[in-house]
Parts: sequence; structure tokens; C-alpha cells
Amino acid sequence: MSLHVHKYGGTSVGDLDRIEAVADRVVRARQEGHTVAVVLSAMAGETDRLTQMGLSLSEHPFDREMDVLLSAGEQVSIALLAIALQSRGVPSRSFLGGQIKVTTDRNHQRAKIEAIETTHLRKSIEAGEVPVIAGFQGMTPEGDITTIGRGGSDTSAVAIAAALEADECRIYTDVDGVYTADPRIVDDPLLLKEVTCEEMLELASSGTKVLHERAVQYAQKYKVPVRVLSSFNDGEGTVVHSDEEENQIEDMEQPVVTGVSLTNNEAKLTVIDAPDVPGVAWKILGPCGEKGIIIDMIVQNTGREQKADFSFTVQQADYLAAMHLLEQTISELSEHAEGFVGTKVVGNEHIAKVTAVGVGMRSHANVATKMFRVLSEENINIQMISTSEIKISVVIDKQYGELAARVLANAFDLTGNIDFK
Amino acid sequence: MSLHVHKYGGTSVGDLDRIEAVADRVVRARQEGHTVAVVLSAMAGETDRLTQMGLSLSEHPFDREMDVLLSAGEQVSIALLAIALQSRGVPSRSFLGGQIKVTTDRNHQRAKIEAIETTHLRKSIEAGEVPVIAGFQGMTPEGDITTIGRGGSDTSAVAIAAALEADECRIYTDVDGVYTADPRIVDDPLLLKEVTCEEMLELASSGTKVLHERAVQYAQKYKVPVRVLSSFNDGEGTVVHSDEEENQIEDMEQPVVTGVSLTNNEAKLTVIDAPDVPGVAWKILGPCGEKGIIIDMIVQNTGREQKADFSFTVQQADYLAAMHLLEQTISELSEHAEGFVGTKVVGNEHIAKVTAVGVGMRSHANVATKMFRVLSEENINIQMISTSEIKISVVIDKQYGELAARVLANAFDLTGNIDFK
Repeated sequence: MSLHVHKYGGTSVGDLDRIEAVADRVVRARQEGHTVAVVLSAMAGETDRLTQMGLSLSEHPFDREMDVLLSAGEQVSIALLAIALQSRGVPSRSFLGGQIKVTTDRNHQRAKIEAIETTHLRKSIEAGEVPVIAGFQGMTPEGDITTIGRGGSDTSAVAIAAALEADECRIYTDVDGVYTADPRIVDDPLLLKEVTCEEMLELASSGTKVLHERAVQYAQKYKVPVRVLSSFNDGEGTVVHSDEEENQIEDMEQPVVTGVSLTNNEAKLTVIDAPDVPGVAWKILGPCGEKGIIIDMIVQNTGREQKADFSFTVQQADYLAAMHLLEQTISELSEHAEGFVGTKVVGNEHIAKVTAVGVGMRSHANVATKMFRVLSEENINIQMISTSEIKISVVIDKQYGELAARVLANAFDLTGNIDFK
Repeated sequence: MSLHVHKYGGTSVGDLDRIEAVADRVVRARQEGHTVAVVLSAMAGETDRLTQMGLSLSEHPFDREMDVLLSAGEQVSIALLAIALQSRGVPSRSFLGGQIKVTTDRNHQRAKIEAIETTHLRKSIEAGEVPVIAGFQGMTPEGDITTIGRGGSDTSAVAIAAALEADECRIYTDVDGVYTADPRIVDDPLLLKEVTCEEMLELASSGTKVLHERAVQYAQKYKVPVRVLSSFNDGEGTVVHSDEEENQIEDMEQPVVTGVSLTNNEAKLTVIDAPDVPGVAWKILGPCGEKGIIIDMIVQNTGREQKADFSFTVQQADYLAAMHLLEQTISELSEHAEGFVGTKVVGNEHIAKVTAVGVGMRSHANVATKMFRVLSEENINIQMISTSEIKISVVIDKQYGELAARVLANAFDLTGNIDFK
């Protein structure tokens, strides 16, 4: 008998009818012979509603109290599902994060899970119950409630599956699985039968947020077999597997590019004519890091006599702050170091980032050139390029973002009616 | 410096503006030199909303899960008040029932508080914080969430005040204090400056629900000075004191009757021609008790040859069930005991119960006769009479209930513009 951890997100438990549907699905899984433990998010909209209430009382509410506030959302959904299961004759018991000892560090609002005690959970499972566990929340060693950041229920589910040594962690969501491209942009993208954790990480950080990034990291680290599937439709979904070795041979037969993603919420800053001496990148970008501005792509180009240009991207929300900070930094630097005289900053908010991802790229050298050729055939100019072992990202003009995603998806055979199952 | 426990009910924290007003009131109390700990209910309507969700998923939801569900309500309100206080520069910290170790028995939905550990609370108070505590909830020794029944936040507040040995437990509510009669029925009733716990108990069980009954019992048992006052208006409210000895002399000067209350939600059942032998009341009423039907007034009358009539009142909601049960019981009894042949049951849903309460009654014999005279002057027929040391209740025709309350309030000088302060 296999042990499955099911995770249902906010949309899947968005109202009472959907909670009933989740209960029915759990009943079916038990009828099919699985032992099931469930991890839930708050009902859709609830976390936002609670956050808004907190923010309307204080511009900067204390993180500890926000955690007390927000964790009430999951508390409601787990009790409701436990009730729905009980009314179907399925023994069930709800557990808060603190009750099963999901112990975290003291970083409220973005806590890290440090340990999960499985005594209570195993006891509940052995008693034939379906434990229904609040995702997203934990407790400090002192007994304070913590939350592990937005989307954290995915992470909770994978961590609990790891702790229980579950056979599979099933992430039920509002899409059928992981696609080769965003169905809202690219017509008829393919549903992937499987994807590696590494690929998922690149896809997640490139805007395809099917699965929370930290959850994928946990899955990779603790070798938890994860499956992403729809809570509304039937289907096998997408298996996210951590072990690349096992799939090495299969990889060769798989498409080289697994997916294409598009990000529209970044902005680009370029520092022109910075002195090309050691420590410049640190001097210029250090203050941004200190202010918590997250920098995504960084590209530096040298060549001209002792001058360097370098560009980087930030979240659009941070664009103005980053620009202001950068101007200030450079003005201060130019007072002390001659090399910075003439250095200036330009920015561009109207960019899109298009990324092609695939573990197969490792053994296929021509992906980048093919990508560039396809874009050039559409007269799309590339502003920045950044590559890793398994992905290539390009920054282009915002207005061509969707076109680029579409033509790349076609070029890499990521669309069509091919049935991957 | 005096330590005050403030308790705010659902209406007082009904929306964000009201939570801000509560925060302002706590700030003022601190400015006046008080140390304050706060106990809160859920925002008005929240407990009902959560209950409805639970009931819509199951006709008989498990009590354990209902407690998990309902306790989320207070969790939200305490976090919000802590945030509102912090934004006013007042250090504050929220505490769930389980976090300050409000240990209860395992009777979910109607748990009894067994112990309160004050270590965390005292530490928070000593650190200069305002602890904001979730009322209504506790935890079993095993770590399961419990609730202590509707209106239980009053009880939580008094119990916490007792545990902290607070100087006063201030129950902030939506009325100015305890009145001599219900202002919705009797014009211009008087606000009582003080009232004994005993009187409060009689008033509470007779329909004037300013303060939850169990809270009064706790106040009496643990000698907690309680004050009931408005969270919307200023004013001294009503002191509920536990110690009658101290006020013995004052009592003599106080009005004999402290208050008049009216209950409209009961129904009367009368068993006619029951055999007048030992054990009859138990045989007839036993099954009702076993089914959890709460019996309020019981009056028995004998006189005719070996036959007795007796009447009792139940909650209107239990009327049909009680009637059915009684008919069944008597039919079974009549098969085995000859005395029950001819015994029958009649009922009346259209009754009102009017009660006069006052510790002064002990030393004044003429209250009952005055009450009967006043009612007879209005041609109001009395169906049942029940007395205790400090109260007299009569059951009358429902349509005369409000009239009776009014004329009695006038007769006992419970109205007018006299300022009791």
C-alpha cells in the first residue's frame, strides 16, 4: 500500500463545493488502495483578505502578528476538509503546523522548516485516519506561530512527504501539470510527462510558477517524487523527479528543450562607462543588495579602453528605487574615484525575458544558435543574453515577448497534439 | 499600579474601525496608569459564519474539528489588535489559548478550564507589553484545541484575571452596564452601580445576558472584581462583586428588587394526574435529562387524592422533542404501573417568564405579594410560580410579558431619572 501526500492549493479549496470535491477525491484515492495525508492552503482570497486587514491597521505590521493572522486561513480550511471527510465516513483529523511540530527558525513571514516530528502523523495514519495538515505554517521552538512565505504550502507538502517517506507527493493545482510553455501565450503547448527538478527550478525562476521554487529544492534535496496535477480534471499530470542519473538514457530521447517561459515583470538597468577595475560590480551593486533589491540577470561586457558597461535586471516594482540608488551610488563614487567620472545609468522598463530550459541542452550545443536564428528571423533584437548549463535567457523588447515565446515553442517542437502520455 | 484585564466582545471588535477604537481605549488606560491585559472575542458574525460553513459540510460535524474551525476567529482578532497597538507605539503580543496554556478538559465545544499557566503572560507584562489573548479557546493536555462554549470569552477573561490576580476584570460590551430591566421593553430603566454575583446569576438565567453565566460563577468562586461597561460610551458601568458580607450594610439601603427580567423563549409542559408516589418526578423527567433537554422551572402541586399535576418549562427549541418524549414515557409507564393510567400531558408554547431579582428580598417578605398584586391589578393571570432566596419568577401568558415587566419595573422603582452614581 502506497502512502501519498496530497496538496491542494487555495483555488482547489476556494469554496465549500470545492472542499466537497477534494473530499471526494481523497475518498477515491483511498478506494484505489492509497493511504492519504493531505496538506492544504487557505481558501482562495483568504490570505489576501487577512493581509489587507493587517496592512490597514499598520503600514509595517510586525511579522510575528502577521503570522498569527495569516495562519488562521489554513486553520479554517483544514477543519472544513476534516469535517467533509468525516461526513463521508472517512476518519480524519486536522493538524496545525505547531501540532505536528513543524519546527521552523524565527524568521517570521519567511521562516525555514528545520524539523518535522512525525509521531502524531504516523499515529493518525496507523489509526486509519486521513490527517489534514495546515500548510504554510510552522512554530518556533518557543511556540510562536510562523509562516514560511507565500506559496509555502507546496514546500510544506514536500517537506511532510519527505518526513513521512511518502511514495509520492501529489500537488493538486488549477492546471493539468507542467507545460512546455504558458498556455495563455503559446497555442497548444504540450503537457510534459516528466521534468527534472533542475528544469523546474529554471522554469519557476523564469516565470512559470506551477510549483513553488523552494518546494522543488526540497524535492531535489530529499529525493521526494512529486507529481503536479489538476484538482479539477483527471489525468496523470507531470512527474517532477529529482534523480537525473536514472533518467540519463531517457533524456537523450527527450526533446532538447523542455519548455519556454516568458517574464514580463522585470526592468533593465545599464551602467555605462564604469571603470574596468576589480571590485566595480560590488561597489555598484552592493547598495542594491543591502536594500533587499533582488537582482536577476547580470551581464557585463568589456572591450573598450578600461571602460565597462554592465546591465542587470530587477523586479519592475524595484525599478525606480534601484535607479535612484544607483544614481546616488555613482555620484558618491565619482567624488572619490576619478574612474567613475562620466559613468552613467540608463534604464528600460519595457523589456521581456524569454527563457528556454532543458537538461538536454548539456549535450546539444546548437540550442543557443537556433534560438538566436529564430528570433532574428522575426527581426527581434536581443538586448541581453544569459546562459546556464540547462537554460538560455534573452532580454528583448517587451512588445515582442509573446511573439518570441510562440515562435520558440514552435521551433523547439513544444506544441502540437502529440500525446506525451 | 493596578492590573486590569479588559475583555472586548464581538461587537466591540466588529470591524477595523472598532479595533482601532479598542486600541485607543487601551492606550488611554495605560496613560491613566493601568497595566492592561486584553482578552478578545472573534469579530462579530465571524463565529456564526464559520459555524455555518462547518454545518453545511456535515449535519453533525465532529466537535474537535468545529473547535479548530471556530478558534480561528479569535486568532484573527487578537493579531489585528496587537498590530493596531504596535502601530500606536505600544508593545504588544498576541497569545492563543494554547500558547498561555489555558488547559481545559476534553469536552470539545463546551470545555471547562482546568488551569491557566501565567508564566508567559507575566513575562509579557513585565516586559511592558500588552498581552492580547484569544478568549473562548483552550487546549487539552494532548495539545488539541478546545472552545469553552458560546459567550465563553467572558469566562476566559474572568479566569485569566483570577490567574493573574488582577485588580479588576473589565468586561467591555455594547451596553452601558447592568440595568434594572431590559431597555428594549421597559422605558428608562436604571443603570445599576453595583450588583452581586448571585443577582447576576439570577438575571442571566432569566434572560438578561449581559454577562455569561459561567463568567459570573468564576467571578464568585475566585473573588474577581468584575466591571461591566460600554466599549462605545464612557461611564463607570456596573460593578459585579462577589463578596456579599462586605456589602451587607449597603444592601439594606439598596432597593429590595435589583432588576426585572423577561424571558420569551421557553415553553411549558404539564403532566396531569400523575400518581402521587415517590420517584414519579424522576421517572417522568429522567428521559428528558438523558436527551440533554434542559429543564428550567419545575412546579409540583398535590392535593387531590393520590394524584399530582406538575409543570415544567423547557427551551422553546426543545418543546416538541420534550412533548414527544413525555408522551412516550407516560405510555410506557402506564403499561407497567396502574397509577399512570389516565395520566396525560398538555403543553403551552405561548408563555413568558417574568423574574424579579434582588438580594434584599431575603429580608423583605412582601416582595412576592406585591408582585402578585401588581400583576392582578393588570388582570394578568399567573400560571406558575417559582421562588428562590433572591428571586421570584412567574409564568404568564406570552402576550402580557412586556406589560408585566413594565408594571413591575415601575412598582419596584426600577425606572426614572434617579442617578445611581
